[in-house]
Amino acid sequence: MANKYKVCVLGSGAFGTAMAHCAINNPYIGRVQIYARNQAIVESINQQHRNPKFLSNFTLHPDITATTDLQQALYQANYVLSCIPTQELHQFVQANKQYIDTKVPFVSCSKGIILKSGKLISQMLSEEFDGKLRYACLSGPSFAAELMQNNPSCVVVASQDTKTSKLVQLGLSGNFLRIFTQSDVVGVELAGALKNLVAIGTGVLDGAGFGINTQTAYVTRSVGEMQRFARIYGASKHTFYGLAGFGDLMLTSFGSLSRNRAFGIKVGKGEKVEDILNESKGVVEGWPTLELVYKQAQENNIEMPMTLILHDFIKRKYSKEQSIQMLMNRAFQDEFEPTFEDLL
Amino acid sequence: MANKYKVCVLGSGAFGTAMAHCAINNPYIGRVQIYARNQAIVESINQQHRNPKFLSNFTLHPDITATTDLQQALYQANYVLSCIPTQELHQFVQANKQYIDTKVPFVSCSKGIILKSGKLISQMLSEEFDGKLRYACLSGPSFAAELMQNNPSCVVVASQDTKTSKLVQLGLSGNFLRIFTQSDVVGVELAGALKNLVAIGTGVLDGAGFGINTQTAYVTRSVGEMQRFARIYGASKHTFYGLAGFGDLMLTSFGSLSRNRAFGIKVGKGEKVEDILNESKGVVEGWPTLELVYKQAQENNIEMPMTLILHDFIKRKYSKEQSIQMLMNRAFQDEFEPTFEDLL
Repeated sequence: MANKYKVCVLGSGAFGTAMAHCAINNPYIGRVQIYARNQAIVESINQQHRNPKFLSNFTLHPDITATTDLQQALYQANYVLSCIPTQELHQFVQANKQYIDTKVPFVSCSKGIILKSGKLISQMLSEEFDGKLRYACLSGPSFAAELMQNNPSCVVVASQDTKTSKLVQLGLSGNFLRIFTQSDVVGVELAGALKNLVAIGTGVLDGAGFGINTQTAYVTRSVGEMQRFARIYGASKHTFYGLAGFGDLMLTSFGSLSRNRAFGIKVGKGEKVEDILNESKGVVEGWPTLELVYKQAQENNIEMPMTLILHDFIKRKYSKEQSIQMLMNRAFQDEFEPTFEDLL
Repeated sequence: MANKYKVCVLGSGAFGTAMAHCAINNPYIGRVQIYARNQAIVESINQQHRNPKFLSNFTLHPDITATTDLQQALYQANYVLSCIPTQELHQFVQANKQYIDTKVPFVSCSKGIILKSGKLISQMLSEEFDGKLRYACLSGPSFAAELMQNNPSCVVVASQDTKTSKLVQLGLSGNFLRIFTQSDVVGVELAGALKNLVAIGTGVLDGAGFGINTQTAYVTRSVGEMQRFARIYGASKHTFYGLAGFGDLMLTSFGSLSRNRAFGIKVGKGEKVEDILNESKGVVEGWPTLELVYKQAQENNIEMPMTLILHDFIKRKYSKEQSIQMLMNRAFQDEFEPTFEDLL
C-alpha cells in the first residue's frame, strides 16, 4: 500500500516546492512530479535535487522530479496540488483544462481573490469544469521556508465533499504537517484573501506610530468584519476563528514583513500611494482586494467600519487622527452583537 | 453633568497608573484618586504629577491624586478600579472589606487565577461579599505604557449585571480607550489567566527552535483547549474569540517578552526549570497556572493534549521530538469537532 501514490504539483514556486517536500513525506505517496515552465528549474530539480530559484538551500527528496510537460506531470496522478499564482490560474486552466481529470482531487493552495473577475478560485473552477472538479482548498499559517525546515505546521483543507477532504488529509499529512478537515470552502478562501487587507491595516497602524495594543485590537475586531462580509458568500463564521482565519492573520500580521504589510507601513508613514505601488516589486494584492471589498461592502450595506475607513485613509480622504476618532467614537457596543441569523 | 464623578483606583502599579490616566479622560469623570501604600509615590503623584516608580516619564493629569488612606480614596467614589496584583487581592479584601461599598461598581483589572486557592477573582469576591458586590472585570490587549501614550486600545468589560457593565463602558471609555461589554465574567477571567500558560508554550516553541508556523498553529489550536477547560466553569466559547481571548493572546505571545514567555524560551532551550525559576525576578504565574490546569484537566477528563504535553515536556518527561510527534500524530480531526453541547 505504502509508497504507491503519485502527487502532481502545478508550479515550482516556493510554495509548490514546499508542498512537494511535504507530500513525499507522507507514507502513501511514492513520487511527486512538479510541473514547471522553466527548463532550468526542471533540470536542476531532476539532476541536483534542488530548485535553483526558490528555497535553493534545501536538497529535495530524490523521488521529487519535475517536468515541463503538463500531460506527463498529470499522468496517473492521484492528487493535483495547484500552486500556481492566483492571478495566473484562470488563464492556465483555460489553456489546459482538457488535461485535467475531474475525478482526481484538485487541491488549490493559492490564496486570494481573482482580481480580474472578483471571483474566488472555487467559483472560477466550478464554472470552467461545470461543477464537476473534485475541488479542495488548503490554507493556514504556513510559510514555505518553514515547511521545508520541517517546522511542525497545521493547515486546513476544505471541500464540499467530505471524501475529498479526508483523502487529502490522509495523503498529505505527515510528521510535520497536520491537516484538519473542513467543509466551508468559500470561508477558507475568503479568509486567505481578506488577511492581505488586514496585513495592510496592521502595517498602516504600525507606520502611523501606533503600538501593539492598537494592532491586536484591530486584528481581533477585523474578524467580525470578515465574517459579516463572508456571510454574503454563504461562509461559516467559525472558519475565521480557525487556522485559515486567526492562524493566518497572526502569521501575516506579526510574523513577517509581507508586501502587503510593507505597503501599509509606508502608507501609515505618509508616503504617496502611487509612489509606493510604483516602487513595489510584485503586486500588492491586498490593495485591489481592499478596493473590491470596499465596493461590495457599500453596495450590500455590510457593517465594516474599520475596512471602509482604512480604504478612505489610504485614499487620503481622512487624516490619521480623523480616522482613529471616527472608529473610537462609534456607538457603544456589546462585544458580540448578535446578527439576525444568530438569533434564528 | 460632566466632570462630576469620582474614580478610585486601588494600586499604584503600572496598570493602576494607566487606568487613572484613561479614567480622567472620560467626560463624566472629574477626579481620580489612587490608593497607594507607598508614601513617596503618593507625594510624587500629588506634588509632581508623576508616579516615580511606574511609567515615570509621563506627567499625570492634575485631577489625578493619590493617598495612603484607603477610606479617603474610597470616599464618594462612583467607581472602584482594582489594580491590586491578583495574588495580593484576597488578603487586601479580607483586611479592608468593611470599607468597600458593595453598591459601587467594583472593576477588577487584575488577570490570573488566585494560586493559593485556585479560585477566580469573581469567585473569591462573591464569597467575601456574599454575592452582593457590584462586580465587573476588565480585560483585553492593553499594555499600560501604550495606554499612557494614548495608543487607541480596545478592552472588554464583563459583568453579570448589564447595568454595571454599561456604567463602566460609559464612565471609562474615552477617545483612546474603547470598551465593549460582555456578560461572561468567568470566561473573561479564565482567558486572562490561561493566556499566561499559552505564553509559556509559544516561548517553549521559540526556544526549541520552531518558527512562526508552529507558534501560530499552537496559539490558534490552544483556544479550543481553553474553551473546553472553561466549559467546566460555565464560560462561553465566544469570549475566547474576542479581545480577552485571541486579542490578548496575540499581545502576550507576539507583542513582548513577558516573564512567562521568557521562562518558556529558557525551558525550550533546555535550561533547568528550577534554575530558571530561581533566577526569575518576580513570579512566573503561568507555571503554577499550568500545573493547576493540568491537574484539573486530568481530573475532569478534558481533552487538552497540547497543554498536557507542554506540562510534561517542562517536567522533562518527554523530549522535544517525542512531544511534537505525539501531537502531530494524533488521530485526524475536523477543524471544529462539535461537542455534545454544540449539538444540543
